[in-house]
Amino acid sequence: MKTRVDLLIKNGLLLAHPCREAHPQWTIAVKNGIVLDFGPAENLAQQYEAPTEIDAQNCLVMPGLVNTHTHIAMSCYRGLADDQPLMEWLNQSIFPAESKTNPDQVYWSSMLSCAEMIRSGTTTFCDMYLFEQEVAKATDHAGLRALLGEGIFGFPSTNYGPIDKGFEYIRQMIKDWKGHPRISIGVMPHAPYTCPPALLGLAAKFAREQKLPLVIHLAETQTEDADIRREHGMSPVELLERIGFLGPDVLAAHCVWLSDNDMDILARHGVRVSYNPESNMKLGSGTAPIPELLARGICVGIGTDGSASNNDMDMFTEMDFAAKLQKVHRLDPTALPAPQVLRMATLGGAQALGMESLIGSLEPGKAADIIILELDKPHLQPLYHLDSQLVYAAKGPDVRDTIVQGKILMRDRKILAFDESEVFAQIRRIHKKVLSDVGKE
Amino acid sequence: MKTRVDLLIKNGLLLAHPCREAHPQWTIAVKNGIVLDFGPAENLAQQYEAPTEIDAQNCLVMPGLVNTHTHIAMSCYRGLADDQPLMEWLNQSIFPAESKTNPDQVYWSSMLSCAEMIRSGTTTFCDMYLFEQEVAKATDHAGLRALLGEGIFGFPSTNYGPIDKGFEYIRQMIKDWKGHPRISIGVMPHAPYTCPPALLGLAAKFAREQKLPLVIHLAETQTEDADIRREHGMSPVELLERIGFLGPDVLAAHCVWLSDNDMDILARHGVRVSYNPESNMKLGSGTAPIPELLARGICVGIGTDGSASNNDMDMFTEMDFAAKLQKVHRLDPTALPAPQVLRMATLGGAQALGMESLIGSLEPGKAADIIILELDKPHLQPLYHLDSQLVYAAKGPDVRDTIVQGKILMRDRKILAFDESEVFAQIRRIHKKVLSDVGKE
Repeated sequence: MKTRVDLLIKNGLLLAHPCREAHPQWTIAVKNGIVLDFGPAENLAQQYEAPTEIDAQNCLVMPGLVNTHTHIAMSCYRGLADDQPLMEWLNQSIFPAESKTNPDQVYWSSMLSCAEMIRSGTTTFCDMYLFEQEVAKATDHAGLRALLGEGIFGFPSTNYGPIDKGFEYIRQMIKDWKGHPRISIGVMPHAPYTCPPALLGLAAKFAREQKLPLVIHLAETQTEDADIRREHGMSPVELLERIGFLGPDVLAAHCVWLSDNDMDILARHGVRVSYNPESNMKLGSGTAPIPELLARGICVGIGTDGSASNNDMDMFTEMDFAAKLQKVHRLDPTALPAPQVLRMATLGGAQALGMESLIGSLEPGKAADIIILELDKPHLQPLYHLDSQLVYAAKGPDVRDTIVQGKILMRDRKILAFDESEVFAQIRRIHKKVLSDVGKE
Repeated sequence: MKTRVDLLIKNGLLLAHPCREAHPQWTIAVKNGIVLDFGPAENLAQQYEAPTEIDAQNCLVMPGLVNTHTHIAMSCYRGLADDQPLMEWLNQSIFPAESKTNPDQVYWSSMLSCAEMIRSGTTTFCDMYLFEQEVAKATDHAGLRALLGEGIFGFPSTNYGPIDKGFEYIRQMIKDWKGHPRISIGVMPHAPYTCPPALLGLAAKFAREQKLPLVIHLAETQTEDADIRREHGMSPVELLERIGFLGPDVLAAHCVWLSDNDMDILARHGVRVSYNPESNMKLGSGTAPIPELLARGICVGIGTDGSASNNDMDMFTEMDFAAKLQKVHRLDPTALPAPQVLRMATLGGAQALGMESLIGSLEPGKAADIIILELDKPHLQPLYHLDSQLVYAAKGPDVRDTIVQGKILMRDRKILAFDESEVFAQIRRIHKKVLSDVGKE
């Protein structure tokens, strides 16, 4: 007699682990949101039956991608202002717009990004923003997996006001989402240049009491590096080390401007890094020293940053930028090869979020966070090396089906998890509001 | 009474010219392969009728993109070898494989790239390769527009053998394709480091006798610059100037390693440039000084290069790389803004190919080379600035319909011009042949 499971994904080219070989004509069995088994299709056909089957013939089946740095509610500012000096962009467009945001706007903008992630193969992300409860609600509704945290600043927030209220807000989030199978909460002080050292210390202490990960922007621009050195006589990384902020529970985004000593410090404390190539390029921030970080054994994931500085959340094109930026920066075509990049976007990202026992590869007992790509596309043929194809040629829209925790969020490019047309309608409304907020309409 | 035309594209957001405003709810009328008229949908509905109508509601209608540097038959080597030092990549993979190519392989690999271009919105390209007659046949069959030329080398070619035969081959191509509405022929000596000065001079003389454009790879790598300087005591650009090669009929690809004097020389001779950011990044070649070239009034188009060094032909992502590479290279977010990049990928490319009276914008009397993108995608909403959206967020797969010379090559993402599944079948065969050619199977 056959074992009954929830879902069988049949006959695909299965890349279960980013560092191992892919197997043609394999089937994967999913039960209770977990990968139960996989193997040659003919074997599994005899062992399992399921009410739902997906035929993955001519398709690649692989773990969903992990986006380690996002501000998904910024999708409503996509293309609002581009190609401007950083401070002009922030002061004339982003900050004025953000000062007028609200829970409704954050919720629907997050839903728009969830639709984008589902369509482009991202199943887990790490997000810091304002009104993060709304991001959590959207993530819950959309069916994605995430590590979420309210941004902490050294000045009053549009959401919670003074910082005391900020920690209250975070406590409430922790309580509300405790035990949720896909949503976990982090403590996310924004950056060394927006949080005074005392606040950074307070945030770290709070995170460790609660046993929650710490996420921060770090060493993103040359200006940040110069400002912190002028004020504190040391680099941003050295400052964080001095106040006891650093540890293996810290995920630092950007990490562009690092000295050798900074990198040694990050390695010594087991800090994890999110590499954000497109954002760093578009804002003219610089090129993070990723090969040097990897050489020190530092865990590196890839992130898109928000859609105001990218301007999309496609982790496939992000991988492409990730590899090529290192090569051109060093004039070395061997820098950051495709297999390393693919690992960073899957298992590396999972490790960066402390979720490697759950996601990043497909193994019996791990979550069934699975994406299925159509391979019969002219830009994906012929197929010599899967890692090259995924990093240098594949794009988000090649994803046909997206599954998280065993639930099919998109099938045959139709989002099943929610009504996408309602999201578009809400975004048309918010589009007009944002134009009015920045005085352009 | 209504005027009968061949095709009406109705109710779209029409971006007729990359530098002008787009108009919502406009219609474009096509007759005999040419744009006859466009304007508000309600006006054109009263003036024209057509046997074929395309509804472009919620879509963008714009000129097809122009890819100014390709080797489309190299699609059969996509991902064959990546992340290697340039000479190892060439000597161990690309050259051994190319030494065993043949007309059949070039034809079907070109068809694969034609499918890719049609799917990603490129309607015109400029190609240099071996067995270019086969590229021309594929282009003719696929319905695309191109400037094509057989590669000329200072050593025997796999196709024509000794160089005398090369000029014979080119003469035959010129004769065979004379008067073709979409295919024109160029004279394409490969590069200063593969053609001795005498051959470059001969090629230039031949091109000018025939009144055909000259296309060459120029100043791509630091090694090329150093080698030419060592051998000739001057830069590659200076060498080309000295032998009388340069002129407004020359399109030079790459142009990464240029001195100020080189740029002044290019400007003085009206040379056009093809900027190939993804290839230059992936091969670790460097960053072309595009803002400096534009500041000198030099015409710059964008090119993908071949699929062995990119690894795709998506001109939308190429635009994204084009803009972001300049910004990170200069640590300046204002470098090469989106409107400039969009112009380079359309009208700039048309000018680079000497086709600006025919393509690059949609105007009455110009060719009906039109692409239609779906805008109701999460990564394309909300829409504040069309140029930002096209450069930083849009991707090839957003293209729904592709029209060249008034003929619908793809409609609702189905290629009508030829049988795509036959191309895939042929490429599966060629895939095995290439593996055998390089001794990997």
